[in-house]
Amino acid sequence: MPMIRVEMFPGRTPDQKRELVRELTEGFVRAAGGNPQGIHVVITEVDPGDWGSGGKLASDKAT
Amino acid sequence: MPMIRVEMFPGRTPDQKRELVRELTEGFVRAAGGNPQGIHVVITEVDPGDWGSGGKLASDKAT
Amino acid sequence: MPMIRVEMFPGRTPDQKRELVRELTEGFVRAAGGNPQGIHVVITEVDPGDWGSGGKLASDKAT
Amino acid sequence: MPMIRVEMFPGRTPDQKRELVRELTEGFVRAAGGNPQGIHVVITEVDPGDWGSGGKLASDKAT
Amino acid sequence: MPMIRVEMFPGRTPDQKRELVRELTEGFVRAAGGNPQGIHVVITEVDPGDWGSGGKLASDKAT
Amino acid sequence: MPMIRVEMFPGRTPDQKRELVRELTEGFVRAAGGNPQGIHVVITEVDPGDWGSGGKLASDKAT
Repeated sequence: MPMIRVEMFPGRTPDQKRELVRELTEGFVRAAGGNPQGIHVVITEVDPGDWGSGGKLASDKAT
Repeated sequence: MPMIRVEMFPGRTPDQKRELVRELTEGFVRAAGGNPQGIHVVITEVDPGDWGSGGKLASDKAT
Repeated sequence: MPMIRVEMFPGRTPDQKRELVRELTEGFVRAAGGNPQGIHVVITEVDPGDWGSGGKLASDKAT
Repeated sequence: MPMIRVEMFPGRTPDQKRELVRELTEGFVRAAGGNPQGIHVVITEVDPGDWGSGGKLASDKAT
Repeated sequence: MPMIRVEMFPGRTPDQKRELVRELTEGFVRAAGGNPQGIHVVITEVDPGDWGSGGKLASDKAT
Repeated sequence: MPMIRVEMFPGRTPDQKRELVRELTEGFVRAAGGNPQGIHVVITEVDPGDWGSGGKLASDKAT
């Protein structure tokens, strides 16, 4: 029943998300064991205008 | 001050969300006590292309 | 595959948590449909010293 | 490496989000110390139709 | 009803957490408006053995 | 700045967590690109008495 959540900037293709789910699931099993059938992955895309670090929005840094 | 969060696939109507907030709030009080006024519910819809299990995207399984 | 997360103060018994999982799962199905087997519930206990509202810690209000 | 997450109703301007990231980052450092460069802030907007309290949707209360 | 969540390493005193709740609440209101009474803050302490960046555990970097 | 969060049952050793951080970080980069230095991983252990599925606590199923 492990749950893996990913927050990342938008822009990945469906193929990249497909690969991401596969990679994270297989990587979890290699490192921590368990049954891949029970592993859930949830991807959340966060806009650069909603993500800050060092006190600044990522959308401002990108400029 | 309990917080309840729900992640689910899109597609529920406003009426279903209204019922969901009511059911989860009342169910919490029945099981764990407390004041319903202080209970918050946040619903997040997750697209099948952003949710994987068993190493596969839900959007691929739906096909 | 719905996921329900609950954050609440500590102090509930195992029986209350058991009831809580049952109530939230059944309430979800009544309101939003779906298969109860696929519904996950994760409970997180938050100490009053780690929860604030209105700018004050809950542990201070309790005093 | 602190992470700060904010869930709020939609409607804030980019300038308000910019200020929010700055305020939360500086406030964290004043209260808890650390290097502002390592502080991340993620903003999530939650629609009033997806947020309930007291058993009712915020979108219904606003009416 | 804004919710602010903070994940940080353990080690802050109750006084620092009290200040943190106050700073984040006041900072939110200055930047984004709203009523401080409705703002919730949840603090979660994450052990350096449970936090990684750049592919390494923070507990290994600290050594 | 991707963030990866893992919720899993307790019981993994520090070595397994070290491997988990490495695997998830490398798997993310292979699938979605980006700089591994900016990837954060947070591990949260959830007790079987705080995790339910199908309306039942995991701690009851284990019995």
